[in-house]
Amino acid sequence: MKQLILSVMTLAALTATSQEEIRTSALNGPVIDSNGNVTLSITAPHADRVTLQLDGRQDTLMTRGNDGAWTVTTNVKPGVYRYLMIVDGVPTLDPNNVYTMRDVNTVKNLLVVDNAAHTMALADHDVPHGTVSMVSYDSPTIGVTRRMSVYTPPGYESNRSRYPVLYLLHGSGGDETAWLEQGRAAQVLDNMIASGDIRPMIVVMPNGHTDTPSAYTPMVQPRFEHQQWMEGTFERSFDDIVTFVDKTYRTKPDSRHRAIAGLSMGGYHSLYISANNPDKFAYVGLFSAAVTPRNNGGDDIYGDIETKLKNQARKRPALYWIGIGKDDFLYEDNVKLRVLLKNARMRYAYHESEGGHSWANWRAYLQIFLPQLF
Amino acid sequence: MKQLILSVMTLAALTATSQEEIRTSALNGPVIDSNGNVTLSITAPHADRVTLQLDGRQDTLMTRGNDGAWTVTTNVKPGVYRYLMIVDGVPTLDPNNVYTMRDVNTVKNLLVVDNAAHTMALADHDVPHGTVSMVSYDSPTIGVTRRMSVYTPPGYESNRSRYPVLYLLHGSGGDETAWLEQGRAAQVLDNMIASGDIRPMIVVMPNGHTDTPSAYTPMVQPRFEHQQWMEGTFERSFDDIVTFVDKTYRTKPDSRHRAIAGLSMGGYHSLYISANNPDKFAYVGLFSAAVTPRNNGGDDIYGDIETKLKNQARKRPALYWIGIGKDDFLYEDNVKLRVLLKNARMRYAYHESEGGHSWANWRAYLQIFLPQLF
Repeated sequence: MKQLILSVMTLAALTATSQEEIRTSALNGPVIDSNGNVTLSITAPHADRVTLQLDGRQDTLMTRGNDGAWTVTTNVKPGVYRYLMIVDGVPTLDPNNVYTMRDVNTVKNLLVVDNAAHTMALADHDVPHGTVSMVSYDSPTIGVTRRMSVYTPPGYESNRSRYPVLYLLHGSGGDETAWLEQGRAAQVLDNMIASGDIRPMIVVMPNGHTDTPSAYTPMVQPRFEHQQWMEGTFERSFDDIVTFVDKTYRTKPDSRHRAIAGLSMGGYHSLYISANNPDKFAYVGLFSAAVTPRNNGGDDIYGDIETKLKNQARKRPALYWIGIGKDDFLYEDNVKLRVLLKNARMRYAYHESEGGHSWANWRAYLQIFLPQLF
Repeated sequence: MKQLILSVMTLAALTATSQEEIRTSALNGPVIDSNGNVTLSITAPHADRVTLQLDGRQDTLMTRGNDGAWTVTTNVKPGVYRYLMIVDGVPTLDPNNVYTMRDVNTVKNLLVVDNAAHTMALADHDVPHGTVSMVSYDSPTIGVTRRMSVYTPPGYESNRSRYPVLYLLHGSGGDETAWLEQGRAAQVLDNMIASGDIRPMIVVMPNGHTDTPSAYTPMVQPRFEHQQWMEGTFERSFDDIVTFVDKTYRTKPDSRHRAIAGLSMGGYHSLYISANNPDKFAYVGLFSAAVTPRNNGGDDIYGDIETKLKNQARKRPALYWIGIGKDDFLYEDNVKLRVLLKNARMRYAYHESEGGHSWANWRAYLQIFLPQLF
């Protein structure tokens, strides 16, 4: 009886105070059947038109039921998607799905379709999980404290082993959370370590925009425009990060156990950081990389890249990997990059995929790149 | 010139692919002036009625401009708030504010009002930041791997000191992220450590619902209803957490350097865990605590609480702290608790506040409780 009373009081009070809110809607979040049919719904009795905006799809008109709930069912291949509902022109998050994904300065709902028959590296599975940390570090070169995300593999806390390190860099629109949120890096690492496809490793995801200390500067909305980007400061200060990581974590602090990879602007960073530090990184990954310097290229970081690449090639990197989509707006930049590498006698692996400048490609490239490390 | 070309191409392509999206709306997220006047807006040209739903306020009607943008300006005291806009009856997140806060299974926008003149412990400030980690640990007692959030103070990575530990527990509607998201625990700890008001400490925030391994079970929407809650399993398995923490972190592994506190169900957990382990915790904090066992109270965990409290009182805890709001539905439970403590000759500190069962109170209680620790 006490039990009943407390439960009832709790529910009543929680609803009343709305401080710990209970969603009372009869609707569910995404309902996914074993064939990948996804049903999404929203209650909007007064709306004239509700459409579903789902990654990689044309907007789909939803159907109004008598109860004022709008519904759509669509078949979706296993994968990670973002979606919104457009209610009379207003972008609306699914009130019944608390999972969201931020991209630059937009937030949409997260939809993960992973049919039981198909173990997908991007989905959450019942495997050992690594630790994901938000860490502050001093960057003496810039003179500020900045933030990075760090993944340490399962078992890191309970053993005394040393691990290789992958530095994984985001694009111009991202920050230190991009590879975790959009890239699903923690799920990919957990799953591929569990399956034995990759070596346990530490993955460091710093913030590549040196004009902001982190994604969560006091209530400044994340923005795409930066005063300062691709102008050398991040490359010039990168050694602050490596120094902090080798001091703080149980790393194997040598080039053979150090990789650097990134997407778009992060590929650009990886290209110039590794070329300027040929003894530091034995593994380089350029995902849809930007190549052309935004400045005149005459400075210490971007200047004389030909000579720097020749010098780097002589060190015989264990892997120099390029991934690019046929429709990527940076495709020509990557043609130019391959000419640079050929002239520098750099041996490289080249992966050309369908599609363009997209997280779908970057998530795929990561899963191709990781097994080749260490 | 190259610079211009690349920039233009980038923006064009990013917009086109919509894989790294740039919010194009002319509107801002919350605009807050130095007097705490907050202006919120949303574009909804076809809407008939748009209201603002802001914590602790009556819903406020927003005003339609000729451009189809609805706006409201309201004065807000410094603090942390959640808000939604209700567009023709549909709960809608502010498309121009990417900051959100989850509470059980609802997501709303986050609004932090901290006028410059007033340094508020809940806001992000330019002070040294601790590390926040999502950590998996084995719980042999339950037989599963579970997840906890761990805060380690600034400097933890760079020194070799040992630290006291606070175990901070969430309510029946929460999970291991509740104190970080709703409670702003990381900001409070960073700010109060920086100001010298509290000792640097490790704070462990486990998940109190033993029927789920973590907040983010594969795409299961977080729920309020649990098969299993306040029935003893969490209390019975708590030693798995302490053992893992003392093995994994540089703790001072004795009762004088160990505190346990929680809100609502977490206060209930703190009450019974500390009473059943009188030698483990010298500091106990009960924030709006539930007291009455949901089962008959006849088992090993909840049975004979009077004797257990007498025994615990004899150990002379350094602090036994109770915080409760005058309007809290658990107020009577806490009157009963104080009788229990009096009969057990337990010395306790009692803080009675305005208001009820609310995060506003729990955030305040944390700031009162922390300076009394260690």
